[in-house]
Amino acid sequence: MSHNSFGHLFRVTTWGESHGPALGAVVDGCPPGLRFTLADLQDYLDKRKPGQNRFVTQRREDDLVKVLSGVMPQEDGAFVTTGTPISLLIENTDQRSKDYGEIARQYRPGHADYTYDVKYGVRDYRGGGRSSARETAARVAAGALARLVIPGVTIRGALIQIGKHRINRQNWDWAEVGNNPFFSPDREIVPVWEEYLDGIRKAGSSVGAVIEVVAEGVPAGLGAPLYGKLDQDIAGLLMSINAVKGVEIGNGFEAAEITGEENADEMRIGPDGQPRFLSNHAGGILGGISTGMPIVARFAIKPTSSILTERRSINADGEEVNVRTKGRHDPCVGIRAVPVGEAMLACAIADHYLRDRGQTGRLK
Amino acid sequence: MSHNSFGHLFRVTTWGESHGPALGAVVDGCPPGLRFTLADLQDYLDKRKPGQNRFVTQRREDDLVKVLSGVMPQEDGAFVTTGTPISLLIENTDQRSKDYGEIARQYRPGHADYTYDVKYGVRDYRGGGRSSARETAARVAAGALARLVIPGVTIRGALIQIGKHRINRQNWDWAEVGNNPFFSPDREIVPVWEEYLDGIRKAGSSVGAVIEVVAEGVPAGLGAPLYGKLDQDIAGLLMSINAVKGVEIGNGFEAAEITGEENADEMRIGPDGQPRFLSNHAGGILGGISTGMPIVARFAIKPTSSILTERRSINADGEEVNVRTKGRHDPCVGIRAVPVGEAMLACAIADHYLRDRGQTGRLK
Amino acid sequence: MSHNSFGHLFRVTTWGESHGPALGAVVDGCPPGLRFTLADLQDYLDKRKPGQNRFVTQRREDDLVKVLSGVMPQEDGAFVTTGTPISLLIENTDQRSKDYGEIARQYRPGHADYTYDVKYGVRDYRGGGRSSARETAARVAAGALARLVIPGVTIRGALIQIGKHRINRQNWDWAEVGNNPFFSPDREIVPVWEEYLDGIRKAGSSVGAVIEVVAEGVPAGLGAPLYGKLDQDIAGLLMSINAVKGVEIGNGFEAAEITGEENADEMRIGPDGQPRFLSNHAGGILGGISTGMPIVARFAIKPTSSILTERRSINADGEEVNVRTKGRHDPCVGIRAVPVGEAMLACAIADHYLRDRGQTGRLK
Amino acid sequence: MSHNSFGHLFRVTTWGESHGPALGAVVDGCPPGLRFTLADLQDYLDKRKPGQNRFVTQRREDDLVKVLSGVMPQEDGAFVTTGTPISLLIENTDQRSKDYGEIARQYRPGHADYTYDVKYGVRDYRGGGRSSARETAARVAAGALARLVIPGVTIRGALIQIGKHRINRQNWDWAEVGNNPFFSPDREIVPVWEEYLDGIRKAGSSVGAVIEVVAEGVPAGLGAPLYGKLDQDIAGLLMSINAVKGVEIGNGFEAAEITGEENADEMRIGPDGQPRFLSNHAGGILGGISTGMPIVARFAIKPTSSILTERRSINADGEEVNVRTKGRHDPCVGIRAVPVGEAMLACAIADHYLRDRGQTGRLK
Repeated sequence: MSHNSFGHLFRVTTWGESHGPALGAVVDGCPPGLRFTLADLQDYLDKRKPGQNRFVTQRREDDLVKVLSGVMPQEDGAFVTTGTPISLLIENTDQRSKDYGEIARQYRPGHADYTYDVKYGVRDYRGGGRSSARETAARVAAGALARLVIPGVTIRGALIQIGKHRINRQNWDWAEVGNNPFFSPDREIVPVWEEYLDGIRKAGSSVGAVIEVVAEGVPAGLGAPLYGKLDQDIAGLLMSINAVKGVEIGNGFEAAEITGEENADEMRIGPDGQPRFLSNHAGGILGGISTGMPIVARFAIKPTSSILTERRSINADGEEVNVRTKGRHDPCVGIRAVPVGEAMLACAIADHYLRDRGQTGRLK
Repeated sequence: MSHNSFGHLFRVTTWGESHGPALGAVVDGCPPGLRFTLADLQDYLDKRKPGQNRFVTQRREDDLVKVLSGVMPQEDGAFVTTGTPISLLIENTDQRSKDYGEIARQYRPGHADYTYDVKYGVRDYRGGGRSSARETAARVAAGALARLVIPGVTIRGALIQIGKHRINRQNWDWAEVGNNPFFSPDREIVPVWEEYLDGIRKAGSSVGAVIEVVAEGVPAGLGAPLYGKLDQDIAGLLMSINAVKGVEIGNGFEAAEITGEENADEMRIGPDGQPRFLSNHAGGILGGISTGMPIVARFAIKPTSSILTERRSINADGEEVNVRTKGRHDPCVGIRAVPVGEAMLACAIADHYLRDRGQTGRLK
Repeated sequence: MSHNSFGHLFRVTTWGESHGPALGAVVDGCPPGLRFTLADLQDYLDKRKPGQNRFVTQRREDDLVKVLSGVMPQEDGAFVTTGTPISLLIENTDQRSKDYGEIARQYRPGHADYTYDVKYGVRDYRGGGRSSARETAARVAAGALARLVIPGVTIRGALIQIGKHRINRQNWDWAEVGNNPFFSPDREIVPVWEEYLDGIRKAGSSVGAVIEVVAEGVPAGLGAPLYGKLDQDIAGLLMSINAVKGVEIGNGFEAAEITGEENADEMRIGPDGQPRFLSNHAGGILGGISTGMPIVARFAIKPTSSILTERRSINADGEEVNVRTKGRHDPCVGIRAVPVGEAMLACAIADHYLRDRGQTGRLK
Repeated sequence: MSHNSFGHLFRVTTWGESHGPALGAVVDGCPPGLRFTLADLQDYLDKRKPGQNRFVTQRREDDLVKVLSGVMPQEDGAFVTTGTPISLLIENTDQRSKDYGEIARQYRPGHADYTYDVKYGVRDYRGGGRSSARETAARVAAGALARLVIPGVTIRGALIQIGKHRINRQNWDWAEVGNNPFFSPDREIVPVWEEYLDGIRKAGSSVGAVIEVVAEGVPAGLGAPLYGKLDQDIAGLLMSINAVKGVEIGNGFEAAEITGEENADEMRIGPDGQPRFLSNHAGGILGGISTGMPIVARFAIKPTSSILTERRSINADGEEVNVRTKGRHDPCVGIRAVPVGEAMLACAIADHYLRDRGQTGRLK
C-alpha cells in the first residue's frame, strides 16, 4: 500500500488502524505563525466521536488528540505553528478485538475484507483495520488545522437525507445543526429521522445518507486547472471517505436535467462595486477555479455494511459461509461523516490556497 | 498554472489551447513492448471528433494524431512502445478565432472566463483557450494507450440521460451504442432524444446529460487505499472533465436510500471455483480496491454554457454587459463526453495496474 | 514548510524537532508480509545514537523506537507488515532546552537559524528545532524497514576521511567497521583519527568527513530515467542529510580526470553464463538504471557548525553580535552520519525496487 | 518508464529520442504575464548546439524551438505566458540512423544500452535513443523559461576543469566565457585545453570535465526542508544530466577537510543595513534554504563513453563481442553540458520561488 497522503502544499498523511495502539496524521505544509489551542482541534473531534447517542456506534473513545511537533508552545498553553510538519496522535483506548476474532478469515459483504486480502495477502481484521472509519478521526484533526489557513473562511456541513427521507431545504437553518443528533439543518425532519433510525437500529439493519458541505469566504482564483481543479480535488477527497459512492458540486446531477439558460449563473456588479453572481448553480467553481461564491458539495454514503442479518459470503479458505457482523456499529454511518466531509473540504481549499499564495501563505 | 498531469505511474500531461497551433499529451509510464497502430488511437479520436452530425458542434477538425516519441516504428507501420514517454500531437486546423473577438473581454456565464482572469490576469479567450473541451482530444488519445496496458480489459461508455429523458436500462444493448449519434445503448430512446435535441438546437439552447462508463476484465486487487483509492482517482478524473458536476460509483446516490441488506453484494464460490459476487452495487470497488467485478461509474455533464440567448454578465473592465455566445457549439456537450469518460476510466485503471505490478507491467 | 516526504512508492515522511516531545516517521508503501522485530530497527538506531563515546555528542538518548501502525503483532513479539503505513515514534528524553535560551534570537554561523527566520518568521530555536541532526534518527528507523524490502541486499557504510586524513583503501575490511568508534574500514587510520579528533574536541572545534555507502545484491534494472534516475534520487537524498555538501556516485569527481578508455566498465560473460562487468567505475548505475554491480556512493559532511570559538554574526533584531555555541555537540558530525547515509541509500533502492516490481513487491 | 518530469510547481516534462521525429518539453507552472521572444529561448539552445567547433560532435542540428501552447502571441511577434502549460518542440533533422545499425544489439561500455535492455526488454538503439545527451536540448529550452520567473536573477556557468587541467580561479572573468569554445572563465587555460583536446580527439578518445554554475540575485528564503531542500533538488537535477558522477554545493568535498572555524560563513550588517555574509562557503544555502548569497554548484562529467578504441563487451544474445563506437561524438561532452547545468539550476530555483510565492508568482 502506498499513497496515504493527500494535498500538494498542504499535505496530510494519515496512519493507523482501528485496533492498533494509536492513529494519527502528519500535516506537512501548514504555514507558520498560526495560533491554535488543543480545544480548537478537539471540538471537531468531539463532533465525530462515537458513543454520543443511540444513533451512532457505542464504541467509546475519548479521541484526545496530542500535538507532537511543528509548534512552539506558548505560555498560555496555546501553540504557534512553525511551518514544520505537525504530528497529531490519537490513542485507541476501547478496542474490543475479541469481537472480531471469528471473522478473522471471513469476508464481510460490503466491507474491504476480500479486496485487502486479494491485494495484500495479509490483513488486520480487527475492527476493519486500516479500512475502518475510525481512520477519519485523523482526517478531522487535520481538517481543524486546515481551517486555520484561510482567513475568514467558514466551513460547515449538514445531513440532508437519510434513506429516502430528505430535509426540506426551505427549513434550512445552520443554527439547528448543533441541536440534534443528526447534524440536520431542518428541525422538522428530526422526529422523522429518529423514528426511522430507531427502527433500523432495532432491526440490526443500517441505511445510507447524503451530506452537504459548504465553504463560505473562499476567495476567487483558487484552483489548478486542468488536473488539479478545485472541484476535482474536492470530489476525489470526498470519494476517499469510507463508504462514499457519489459526489456532486453545485447542482450536481440535476445539471443534467436543465438547459443552459437555467444552469449558467449570471453576473452583475454588486452595490459594493464588486462582481456578483446572481445564483450559484456552479457551487462556487467554474473551470476548476473558485468564483468567490460559496463552495457547495454533496456526497452519498452507503449503508453501514456491518449488519446483524446473516448474509452469504466466502472465507479466506475459499469456502462458502454465512456472516453475521456482531460488534458495535453505526446504524447510519453517514451521520458521523458530516465532520469528516467538512474536514476534507477544508483540506482541499487550504491546499489550493497555498498553491496560489505559496507555502508560507504570504498574502494572507 | 500547474498540475496539468495526472496519474502516478501511468502519467499523462496534456497541453494546448483551442486555437493555438496544436494540442497534445505526453504519456509517461506506458510499459515497454506494447504494439499499436495509429488507427488504434485514431478510432477513439474519431468518436470524439466534432462535426459528425447535427447534434454536435460544426467545427471541423480532422484530429489526426501524430506519435513523436516513445516508440520503435516497425516495418509494417505499427509502433512498439519502448517504455519512454510517448508524445502525442494533434494539430488545430479549423480555428475561426474571429468568432471570439468580441468576447475577448466579456465573461460568458457558465464559462471559466471570469475565474481564469481573476487567477491569471491574462487569458487566451480564443475558443475558451485552455478551458475549451477541445483539450479532451488529448485525453482520448492518451486513453487509447491506456487501454493497451491491461490485457483483456474492455472499457465502454454510453449516454444514459439527456435532460430529463433517461434510457430504459432493460433495453441496454452495447451493440446499439455505435448505431446512433448519441452513444445510446437503448435503441428506443433515440427518436425521443433526436426530437428533443432538435428543439434545443434550433432554440440556440443546450442541455445536460449523464454518461455511464464501464470497465470489464479488471483484475481484483487494484487500488491504493487510503488516498489513492481506485474510486477516488476515478471520481477525481471524471470530475476533471469539462462541465462535469457529479460523479457516482456503482449504485451511487441511490446507495443513500437503501439498507445494508439491500446494498452489500453477497459472495459465493462460482462453478469455476473462483470467488463470485452475486450483485455489483459496489460498482466493482470495495475499500478503494477493485473486486474483479465490472467497474461502473457515471457522471453528469452540465448544459453547454455557450447559448444564443442573451445573458447578463460583466466584462473585464467591471462593466455590466449582456452576452450572447455565437460561434459553433454543441447543443449537448455530454454526447461527445462519452469517449472522454472512457479515456479517463482507462487511464485510472492503467495507472493502478502499474502501481500494483510495477512500471514495466511485468506480470502481464 | 512542506515536502517532509521522499520516495515515490516507498514513501517516508518524517516529523519532529530536537526538543519536542518526540520525533518519528511514517513509512508508506512498505510491502505486506515482511517480518521484523523491534531489535531489527533498534540495532541501526543504536549505531547512530549519541553519547556512545567521546567523539560524539554527549547528549544521552535511548532512542527507543515504537511501532504504532501498519503491522500485525505476532505471538513471538515480532511484527508482520500489512501494507498499510507504518508509524514509527521515538521519544525525546534528554532535552536541555535551557542550553539554547541565549541563542533564541541569535543566528549561529553555519546553522539554519537565519534562513529559517527569513522564510518562516518563527523558529523553534531549541537545539536547532527541525534542522537538528536529531531528525536523522527517524531516517535511520525508516531505513531499517527499507532494508527488508529487497531480498538479499546488503547495505553498509564506512567513514573514509576525517579532515585531510583519508583511509588507505588497500586496508579496507568491512569487518573492522564495527570495531572502532569511527566506522572506519581501515584499522590503521584509527589511532591517527583518535589523536586528531581529540585535539579538535579539546579545542572546542570541529571538522568535516567523507562517508562511503555501498549496496550489494541490488538487481539490475532499477531506475526511472530521466528524472527519477536511481543515481539522481540517491544524490538528492544524500544531499538532504544535514551538513552534506557533496555527493559522488562511482568514481565521482575522479571521472572528470580520466579518459573514456579508463572510465567505461568493460563486460564479459561470467563463468555462470551471466553478464559480468570487469570493473565498477560507474558505481553500479548506467543511464540511471542499476547494472547489478554494487552501488557505491560517497558524501562529504561539513564540520559541525556549533563550535566554542566566538564567531561574528547578527541577531533577529538586526544587530551585530558575537556567538559562541555552547551545548553538547559532535566534534565530527560525520561519524554519526554513517548509518544515516546507509538509510538513505536503502530507502532509495527500496523505492526503485517497488517502482519496478509494484507496490506489493510481487516478484520478490 | 515513468517520471520524465521534475519540479513541484514549475514542472518540466521532457520527451523524445535522439533519432525520432522530434523532442521537446512541456513546462507546466510557468507564471502568467511573462513576456519573451523565440530568440530568448534560441540563444540558450545555440550555446548547447552541436557542430559549432571541432571540440564537439559534428552532428549538425539547427535546434530551432517552436512554442505550441501556453502563450498569447503579441503583435510584435513576442509571446506572453498565460499560466497554462507551454509546449516546446525541437525537430530532429540530422539523424544518421544507419551509423548505429551495427550496434543495435551490442552493449557499448559506459552507455545505458545494457541497463535499458535489462529493464525494458526493448530499446531505441538509434543514437542512444532516450538516453542520448540530445535530450538536454529540451532541458535548455525549459531552463530559458525558468530564467524569466525570478526577477533580477542571473544564472551563468563555466567549465573549470578538463581532465586534470583546471582553471586558475584567480583569472576568473565571466566576460571570457563567451570568447572561447570551452566556456572557460580563464583565458590562460584555453590554449592548454585546445592542445590537450586536439590530442584526445585525434586519438578517438574522450575525457571528463567539471562545470561550475552560479545563480546570483536569488532572494533569501527559498527551499523546502527537509526533503525538498534547495540543495537537494539542485543536486538531484544536476545528477540527472547524462554522464554526471558528482555534485557539490559551495565548498563541497573541500568542506570535509576543514574546521568549523574555517567553514562557517560569518555575518555582519552591511552598509545598506541588510544582513551580509562575509564569505560563501555554504554556496548560498543553509539548512536547505537560500541565504541571499550566490548559489554555487559544481558537477563532474565522465568522459564520453563513445570512443574509437575497441572495448570488450557483450551483446543482446549473451555473446562476448568487441565494440568500437563509430558515429559523431563529443571528445569532451562536458563542454556542451555548461548550458545544461545552467538550465537545471534555473529550473530548481524557479520551482522553489513559486513554492514560496505561489503558482502565479504573485509577489514578484
